[in-house]
Amino acid sequence: MQNYSSKLLENAVNQIAKLPGIGHRTAARLAIHLLQQPETETDSLTGALHEMRHNIHRCRHCFNLSDEEECDICRNPNRSPSTVCVVQDIRDVMAIENTEVFNGRYHLLGGVISPMNGIGPGQLQIESLWGRLPEIEELILALPATTEGDTTAYYLYKHARELKPAMRITTIPRGLSVGDELEYADEATLGRSMLNRIDFQTTFSNQ
Amino acid sequence: MQNYSSKLLENAVNQIAKLPGIGHRTAARLAIHLLQQPETETDSLTGALHEMRHNIHRCRHCFNLSDEEECDICRNPNRSPSTVCVVQDIRDVMAIENTEVFNGRYHLLGGVISPMNGIGPGQLQIESLWGRLPEIEELILALPATTEGDTTAYYLYKHARELKPAMRITTIPRGLSVGDELEYADEATLGRSMLNRIDFQTTFSNQ
Repeated sequence: MQNYSSKLLENAVNQIAKLPGIGHRTAARLAIHLLQQPETETDSLTGALHEMRHNIHRCRHCFNLSDEEECDICRNPNRSPSTVCVVQDIRDVMAIENTEVFNGRYHLLGGVISPMNGIGPGQLQIESLWGRLPEIEELILALPATTEGDTTAYYLYKHARELKPAMRITTIPRGLSVGDELEYADEATLGRSMLNRIDFQTTFSNQ
Repeated sequence: MQNYSSKLLENAVNQIAKLPGIGHRTAARLAIHLLQQPETETDSLTGALHEMRHNIHRCRHCFNLSDEEECDICRNPNRSPSTVCVVQDIRDVMAIENTEVFNGRYHLLGGVISPMNGIGPGQLQIESLWGRLPEIEELILALPATTEGDTTAYYLYKHARELKPAMRITTIPRGLSVGDELEYADEATLGRSMLNRIDFQTTFSNQ
């Protein structure tokens, strides 16, 4: 147990240390840093967190975080409404947006099916996805490369196939990272990329 | 540049990323974590930070952080007022308190002399230390083992010696960490501990 000379400091440290990946030592360092800065620095931080937490919206179409009822991507007429990429959460949207290769829209599930954590299809934005099917021509399943991600993707695939048999359903392949040597790739990744081989010609015709 | 779908989120991430040692990636993870928790979690965090920053005091004797005008240590009649340990900031107080071997009081300079950063003796709590000299019998200089710490300690030593020649002035030795092998100790530490050898008897008579 640390000896804090101030309950106010101790309370602040305990609150900071609730954040994921931040221990008490780091929390104390951050709190003391704030005490060494002008009060306005702390006010800016707490104000930004308060505003974010209380005023942020979920886009009513795709459930992306947004300052409005509709997110920038869903409002953008240049983004194709017929190509929808299903992801877990906003971090995946940011990662895909950073690649600058995708011009469709998104659908955020808010998680993946995880019976261990009590998360079934009912806790995720799946019904709302089915509501969007009429305008979707290609559904991209871009879920985590984990058992739970695979389970969720298979669940969505099976139901989407039933609901709209003619729709194209794709996924992002597992494979080597760019620059990787085969000998250092993990077995599962290499195994899946061997099974899901693609025509070599597509690797340069897509560039 | 990250693509945030929300200015509120982006602003929160930017504020979090101002904290030392927290990059934008970690800041985004923390902000999204808060969005996934109930609003009360964010309220507890921002409330604790606000209370801490606006209501904390510096003890009027030792400048330790405190919820009152006088800190718990200075108010404690069992802590000797004649032994004062000079440290840089509150983290040092917490580190020394955790050892549970010190029963005196502290004096927090608020930093060390650092001409490179424009910090001279006038920016530190040094005049206030001289004000405490009448009641001090032993002044312990427990400053960082850096050039700046050493410079500050020497400055304090020189002036304290002039102001109160009979006072005992001590410091914490440089030496091997408990459990260290000699061969792995850095040269400077080993060199200083060789020069500042102590009577072997004191190593067990102090236990």
